[in-house]
Amino acid sequence: MPDSNRQFRLASRPAGKPDAETFELVETDVPEPGPGAALVRTRYLSVDPYMRGRMDAGESYADAWAVGDPLHGGVVGEVVESNGAGFEAGDVVVGNLDWADYATAPGTELTQIDPDLAPVSTALGVLGMPGRTAYFGTRDVAEPGPGDTFVVTGAAGAVGSVAGQIAKLAGARVVGFAGSDEKVAFLEDDLGFDAGINYKTAEDYGDALDEAAPDGVDAYFDNVGGPITDAVFDRLNVDARVAVCGQISLYNAEERPTGPRKLGQLVVSRARVEGFLVGDFAPRFETATERLAEWVASGEIEYRETVTEGLENAPDAFLGLFEGENIGKQLVKVSDPDD
Amino acid sequence: MPDSNRQFRLASRPAGKPDAETFELVETDVPEPGPGAALVRTRYLSVDPYMRGRMDAGESYADAWAVGDPLHGGVVGEVVESNGAGFEAGDVVVGNLDWADYATAPGTELTQIDPDLAPVSTALGVLGMPGRTAYFGTRDVAEPGPGDTFVVTGAAGAVGSVAGQIAKLAGARVVGFAGSDEKVAFLEDDLGFDAGINYKTAEDYGDALDEAAPDGVDAYFDNVGGPITDAVFDRLNVDARVAVCGQISLYNAEERPTGPRKLGQLVVSRARVEGFLVGDFAPRFETATERLAEWVASGEIEYRETVTEGLENAPDAFLGLFEGENIGKQLVKVSDPDD
Repeated sequence: MPDSNRQFRLASRPAGKPDAETFELVETDVPEPGPGAALVRTRYLSVDPYMRGRMDAGESYADAWAVGDPLHGGVVGEVVESNGAGFEAGDVVVGNLDWADYATAPGTELTQIDPDLAPVSTALGVLGMPGRTAYFGTRDVAEPGPGDTFVVTGAAGAVGSVAGQIAKLAGARVVGFAGSDEKVAFLEDDLGFDAGINYKTAEDYGDALDEAAPDGVDAYFDNVGGPITDAVFDRLNVDARVAVCGQISLYNAEERPTGPRKLGQLVVSRARVEGFLVGDFAPRFETATERLAEWVASGEIEYRETVTEGLENAPDAFLGLFEGENIGKQLVKVSDPDD
Repeated sequence: MPDSNRQFRLASRPAGKPDAETFELVETDVPEPGPGAALVRTRYLSVDPYMRGRMDAGESYADAWAVGDPLHGGVVGEVVESNGAGFEAGDVVVGNLDWADYATAPGTELTQIDPDLAPVSTALGVLGMPGRTAYFGTRDVAEPGPGDTFVVTGAAGAVGSVAGQIAKLAGARVVGFAGSDEKVAFLEDDLGFDAGINYKTAEDYGDALDEAAPDGVDAYFDNVGGPITDAVFDRLNVDARVAVCGQISLYNAEERPTGPRKLGQLVVSRARVEGFLVGDFAPRFETATERLAEWVASGEIEYRETVTEGLENAPDAFLGLFEGENIGKQLVKVSDPDD
């Protein structure tokens, strides 16, 4: 049994961009699993943009974290001890757990994963919540089809990279916005996107879109929001669909951001704009995960991971999401199976 | 045969709000109907907010009018002469015709109306394009149902007043925004809305909504846009539907209006926002009109008209739309059957 544990807590609510004041790493005892629960040693911890919302007080789609409480999110780990949780020591599981070396969770909230099927880290990425978000947001909300032009923002990220590839499988022309030439090359050369746009160097998003999406936009998967989205809305075709997944460019704003009013354009285009949460598709998670696993196995979907080493670096990994430092899924590696 | 005609032409494209410079009333000969066409004497002429878009150059959902061309829109009139158009002199018809005392149109673009069924002016209002817009926008896009709260802007206008009553028939709690106490009384006392809000005197739209729609908003029919819409978006319930019909508060803007970015709220609410044009529902116009006629006949739908007398006053009637001077459908009466 391990004799020490580290855990990240929310030290204070950030005003705008989180910083070192936001996080506190504390030493704790290793928790004991109660009846029906398991003690899990963290191997990989997921940092995701939606967690920014949980740091604020007040309502969002995910409950606010209380100041002083452990941060919490997707974790892949190894069962150390099962107190009637239905697992055996050594089982690899995925679930929502604390940002910690060790944490406990009820067995009902943990899912076993098969390390022989795919690297276990994929349970937090392409075969996990981000992959399923891409799957449902593309398939059920943005609905790209053959002949359509599909645009995705945050295209090199965990969700966007999968969304674009699913749209490609559906027969669409796929255009992605990403924040570096390296990412654009990843989209075009590795993922098979028809065009990538580096939004950090593009002089005018509208001009860039006119070149990359000359027939306008039929389906838009938005992870970012802001001026890129404004330019896309100006180019929506009749009956276009917009899936609003996230608005990462706005999450750290201290005042409510403003921009051009866009509803009038929806009348011209008769477009549909729809927000979605992956959790609403829970009854179909298994199908989505199976299909994603087949595509990964066949090579039809490629994925990449950016791995930050060490629990202590989790805040940096999280903050890097807002700077676009990751390609593909951003993970924090907390322990090795052989440690 | 009449010996003189008057016709309104687009004198210049307005920058911002149209004014006297925008319109020119010219004397012309009475036109002769070509083969298959009819000469129609205008009884009522419709002025509608969407016409503002036709005064601008460039793309909108309705083609731009050329400078020097006659203004054109919904007209109810009497056939004076039919040149193989399939009508007889004296038939009352509705169609898209010039803003004029007399105009011609191909018989295929005119529809005969039965003066015994309802006042002929209703073919431009509750039983015409505005009524059908309300019907499809409510029924197919905003989709209010029992237990839902339905909010409509421009609620005392030709479209909004019908939309709210259809939502009421569908079992929803109905709240309307309108621009005077007289209009609010019309909504609450004559149309059976649960609450009306005078947006010209309300100090805070959010507070007013919290009182009138304490359970949030499930369905929103937007004719107006701007700050009222911002307040509604802040109160959208999970799975809410927004039908974007028009944005009259923005039509005369000289620069692109800005406002708070709202897409992030759609993720929280998983709401759907959809623009629509009534023309897309053309295959179902007959059903809609029949149903509206039944509701009008049974008294389940009340309607009102604001009638401006005289072709020469059509520009004032049109401009009054942007000042909210009308209750119900704004018409221009151009001639009497007995003249």
